[in-house]
Amino acid sequence: MIRVGIIGATGYAGNELVRLLMGHKQAEIRWYGSKSYIDRAYAQVYRNMFQIVEDICKDDDIEALAKQVDVIFTATPQGFLAGILGEEILQQTKVIDLSADYRMKDVSVYEKWYQIPHKSPQFMEEAVYGLCEINRGKVKGARLIANPGCYTTCSILTAYPLVKEGLIDANTLIIDAKSGTSGAGRGAKLPNLFCEVNESIKAYGVASHRHTPEIEEQLSYAAGQKVVVSFTPHLVPMNRGILVTAYASLAKRADGSFPNEEEIRAVYEKYYAKEQFIRLLPKGECPETKWVTGSNYVDIGFCVDARTGRVILMGALDNLIKGAAGQAVQNMNLVFGLCESTGLELAPMFP
Amino acid sequence: MIRVGIIGATGYAGNELVRLLMGHKQAEIRWYGSKSYIDRAYAQVYRNMFQIVEDICKDDDIEALAKQVDVIFTATPQGFLAGILGEEILQQTKVIDLSADYRMKDVSVYEKWYQIPHKSPQFMEEAVYGLCEINRGKVKGARLIANPGCYTTCSILTAYPLVKEGLIDANTLIIDAKSGTSGAGRGAKLPNLFCEVNESIKAYGVASHRHTPEIEEQLSYAAGQKVVVSFTPHLVPMNRGILVTAYASLAKRADGSFPNEEEIRAVYEKYYAKEQFIRLLPKGECPETKWVTGSNYVDIGFCVDARTGRVILMGALDNLIKGAAGQAVQNMNLVFGLCESTGLELAPMFP
Amino acid sequence: MIRVGIIGATGYAGNELVRLLMGHKQAEIRWYGSKSYIDRAYAQVYRNMFQIVEDICKDDDIEALAKQVDVIFTATPQGFLAGILGEEILQQTKVIDLSADYRMKDVSVYEKWYQIPHKSPQFMEEAVYGLCEINRGKVKGARLIANPGCYTTCSILTAYPLVKEGLIDANTLIIDAKSGTSGAGRGAKLPNLFCEVNESIKAYGVASHRHTPEIEEQLSYAAGQKVVVSFTPHLVPMNRGILVTAYASLAKRADGSFPNEEEIRAVYEKYYAKEQFIRLLPKGECPETKWVTGSNYVDIGFCVDARTGRVILMGALDNLIKGAAGQAVQNMNLVFGLCESTGLELAPMFP
Amino acid sequence: MIRVGIIGATGYAGNELVRLLMGHKQAEIRWYGSKSYIDRAYAQVYRNMFQIVEDICKDDDIEALAKQVDVIFTATPQGFLAGILGEEILQQTKVIDLSADYRMKDVSVYEKWYQIPHKSPQFMEEAVYGLCEINRGKVKGARLIANPGCYTTCSILTAYPLVKEGLIDANTLIIDAKSGTSGAGRGAKLPNLFCEVNESIKAYGVASHRHTPEIEEQLSYAAGQKVVVSFTPHLVPMNRGILVTAYASLAKRADGSFPNEEEIRAVYEKYYAKEQFIRLLPKGECPETKWVTGSNYVDIGFCVDARTGRVILMGALDNLIKGAAGQAVQNMNLVFGLCESTGLELAPMFP
Repeated sequence: MIRVGIIGATGYAGNELVRLLMGHKQAEIRWYGSKSYIDRAYAQVYRNMFQIVEDICKDDDIEALAKQVDVIFTATPQGFLAGILGEEILQQTKVIDLSADYRMKDVSVYEKWYQIPHKSPQFMEEAVYGLCEINRGKVKGARLIANPGCYTTCSILTAYPLVKEGLIDANTLIIDAKSGTSGAGRGAKLPNLFCEVNESIKAYGVASHRHTPEIEEQLSYAAGQKVVVSFTPHLVPMNRGILVTAYASLAKRADGSFPNEEEIRAVYEKYYAKEQFIRLLPKGECPETKWVTGSNYVDIGFCVDARTGRVILMGALDNLIKGAAGQAVQNMNLVFGLCESTGLELAPMFP
Repeated sequence: MIRVGIIGATGYAGNELVRLLMGHKQAEIRWYGSKSYIDRAYAQVYRNMFQIVEDICKDDDIEALAKQVDVIFTATPQGFLAGILGEEILQQTKVIDLSADYRMKDVSVYEKWYQIPHKSPQFMEEAVYGLCEINRGKVKGARLIANPGCYTTCSILTAYPLVKEGLIDANTLIIDAKSGTSGAGRGAKLPNLFCEVNESIKAYGVASHRHTPEIEEQLSYAAGQKVVVSFTPHLVPMNRGILVTAYASLAKRADGSFPNEEEIRAVYEKYYAKEQFIRLLPKGECPETKWVTGSNYVDIGFCVDARTGRVILMGALDNLIKGAAGQAVQNMNLVFGLCESTGLELAPMFP
Repeated sequence: MIRVGIIGATGYAGNELVRLLMGHKQAEIRWYGSKSYIDRAYAQVYRNMFQIVEDICKDDDIEALAKQVDVIFTATPQGFLAGILGEEILQQTKVIDLSADYRMKDVSVYEKWYQIPHKSPQFMEEAVYGLCEINRGKVKGARLIANPGCYTTCSILTAYPLVKEGLIDANTLIIDAKSGTSGAGRGAKLPNLFCEVNESIKAYGVASHRHTPEIEEQLSYAAGQKVVVSFTPHLVPMNRGILVTAYASLAKRADGSFPNEEEIRAVYEKYYAKEQFIRLLPKGECPETKWVTGSNYVDIGFCVDARTGRVILMGALDNLIKGAAGQAVQNMNLVFGLCESTGLELAPMFP
Repeated sequence: MIRVGIIGATGYAGNELVRLLMGHKQAEIRWYGSKSYIDRAYAQVYRNMFQIVEDICKDDDIEALAKQVDVIFTATPQGFLAGILGEEILQQTKVIDLSADYRMKDVSVYEKWYQIPHKSPQFMEEAVYGLCEINRGKVKGARLIANPGCYTTCSILTAYPLVKEGLIDANTLIIDAKSGTSGAGRGAKLPNLFCEVNESIKAYGVASHRHTPEIEEQLSYAAGQKVVVSFTPHLVPMNRGILVTAYASLAKRADGSFPNEEEIRAVYEKYYAKEQFIRLLPKGECPETKWVTGSNYVDIGFCVDARTGRVILMGALDNLIKGAAGQAVQNMNLVFGLCESTGLELAPMFP
């Protein structure tokens, strides 16, 4: 039985992690950390867990925690983990970080986009970017895993095979992403009030959203060269779900031809045919977030547009599962040598 | 492994049954029946099941089906099962009916409220009303189970202990119920369009809703006398969930006193303290449908109002789970001697 | 041109008042008061008013304001107006208060339900309860108008004729009310976040909501005796709208008979046939909030249930218009001798 | 008083047209045409109009209608008007068509994208594309006006000045559009059911949506050369509103420089500063559909992204008003020499 500690258990991602681990037969939560709700019953903060979780919220003492558990999940604000992580902790336990602190290799990129100093850059190189389908091998042996962002997971998985195989010109990539409101967190802020979000849609963080460099770094590895993308997130009046619609110019080949539908499909199949959590949709179908809600799946579809010489890529996932807690559990499973899908075999819930 | 057949697998309740059974370790679906989608892949009708369910929808041949499975779930329109059920079928397989065909004992009541003739009233007496928490014993030995309606389950469970123990005057009971839109089914009807339901609330079926006699019959058994109630359903712009707010006058005792908060709580505890799927909320808390969504739980709260001499009872459940498919699985578990919660240990999903 | 000042212009009701007055040909806003946003452009706080309202938010100086305008609307927290109102102000200007400060005649009732001391009870007697359809005459000559609450307006108008004419036993009245979330205000509170409200419904303030005594007081005047009611509000995942479903026992007449459908309808017609903003629905129809959204209408329907001896009454209105700002404008029109519907001739907006 | 006839008055756009015309002081509806609801009271089909509209729905007899009214609005399926329009009608009355029948000049483009033959191509040349802000002059003298599509209006107005002035490379334009569900019409179709739309987002009509050629034609006129764009619509779980997020590469000038924020703003100002219904947002602000809902406004914002050499353009409007009925009224006002904003001076309604 894997002993689990969670720091930041009372955010939406933390709560989802708790829910998933309740159904995980080989893991047991030993520590519900929550700075905001210390000494309150967890089930008072999240009434869904009434009579399911009996524990009391504890503080953030990562050193005490490291001695008691096999793995720590941190679902905390940017900079928190970087400020407290030390070698001693990593020698005692695994750490899976749902924040952005170790997602990038270049500390200056982190500090530029997040506008805070990084307190422990010495772990940035070691940290493994926990996008399981792409970094599975590295995840298995890792002590410190940087769990990818929600927009990022969706964006990268949707574009990765085509970038990797050079079927699109990666620098023409434009990612228009739409997210449910749980991605904005449980903070009591005016823009997240029901009446402000409901019956409206807006873009935000245009040309400045923090998931941009994360997407670019991973796609650059895939492309073998620096990739710069446009990324625009939007807030959608729904609880869960991310939909990415991405546009890219098809790459012209030496003989002047362009990849066609079948070739693109073949490349997707090459990378994802065996992936349990990636579902490549048949020709002509577009992903809908409702078909993945409540599950760890990513649905991907695409459409070649000969008229414009572009391909339109679409990906959908549940931002709290594959985009956060589910992927964190998937990483945990990999690290501890379990079947990768343990605790994640949930069929999407509809409606 | 219990072999399962579903007739009506492509309604919302049918789909939820499929989803729950995907996570049930001791049951296996052998037949996806759907009159509307014969020969189409089930996963084409419900894209959440893409790459999870590979089966093709079949027709409604209950006789062929009865030979192949241990239990048949019928999630079909009123009158369907009554029109095709025969003794031979019940000798071969168990039947759990999610329609109203066998929920009442009095055929004239059925025919009056449903406005259709009942084709097989000979099974009405035998059929067990599958409200597990109340009829557990009878369910265990049953061949034919009438799975309760969604409004009904919520209404009865919320009021039952107080009616049974005579703490309220059952004939003052007024049930104001609110339901998510999945309760209206997947039929393509104008009143169920997004723009018609969204941003609105309405009552419907006032003083005439078909769940009324079902509630009355069960509460009459509990009261030991005929009970007549007011029941008003409302349509709420959300996918899932039923909330019942019920009002009743506290019953005056021989000494002129009325039951107080503690006595009412004690009665609820007497009936429900050991029930896994019923959660009695602490004093001052009101159920919210979001805290039970995605689970088989019923949350119950109440408030004694000395000013008016009434008690206000509140119950919340997920209409597709405890109000339909979850309760059907719970009944199946009872019938086949499994642990009652098998396949139903899902923590509510929030948000 | 009536010169208008608004204190509390940046709440949802305040913003709606601004919107309605923009379309009012005989009124002009001279003062946008907002304690929270002093010196900020009003249109920055409410982007719908971009390039429509050029004004800057000012503070709450009611004495300065009283000298400059013909009428002051206060859309402020409970206790605010009571704390600053004085005779001098009322000698200079009319005051229409959207808070509860002057809705009741009995200061002890106010202080009990609102749990704050009332600082200027001397004006309670003078204040006119601004439910236009019922108190039209008194409103016309008033200096100080207590604009009714949203739940209250809907509840009273729905039940008034039957209580007034004694067709129902007023003390059996149970009011189950459902409100859109704008009724909760624009405060940044966790329970009002999108993800907390969306896809859920709950009761709140059970047996303790502050609109209860207001309903009771007005219905007591109508009944000519003290009336006590059960009132339960619910939060619905929609922006606007209140639906009231009310239950009452039909009053037995001396000859042992009960009022029937036609008699009840006749009584409604007696009171409301000439009311422009009350629409009595035909037999068998239930009000839906969507049909009144964006307008000053109240839709009323009812159903006699001979089985239970009760009548079910239903009323729907837009909580920000007839339940707040629209009624305030209607009161202003009455006070200043304008056509009562000036600025309120908006057909409901659907969808 | 302009006498108005509407053919197709019972679709969502038709109902919105009715609502707007109710508030138009110089127009009067004489004919509510509706094939589906002939002889039914209009207010039975749209309960918001109860006691506001007393008329009965009539059939589609355009010849009879032409004799009785000054202008006919057709809010009808594609191909309907083209099938019945004749010279005689245009000699008797003005026609403002909300369908696509006369939006394009090239009949082959129409027939290719709409997959139906065009029955009266002889009027295509005469028809004026009724995008008021761009074609105001031509609209004034027109007999036949092709009222633009909802996506189209938003897309064109957002991009027009930059294309016209050559600040962007028009052929790099990628338009990612998001629409509320009223755009899908009031047909009772499964994909438009509440439970199918709610809590989900999807793209549809990828690389094949019929508004594409309309956008391209108008932007080609602006650019003075053929423009081809990518256009992807999405369905959003809200009633009203369209948001367009558009991406384009900044055009390199002869001296190697690119347009900057100020230059782009200056161009927008040049075209729109005097436009009452176009609101150019300050730097750093993104349009949100909620700020235009219920009004005829289009809000436009943009962001220059030096990192990628692109500009991101954003536009928001209410699809039923500026995207349909409001623009139709605006066109009517122009045709009849009224103040362009008559009946359209509605401040956006929030929340």
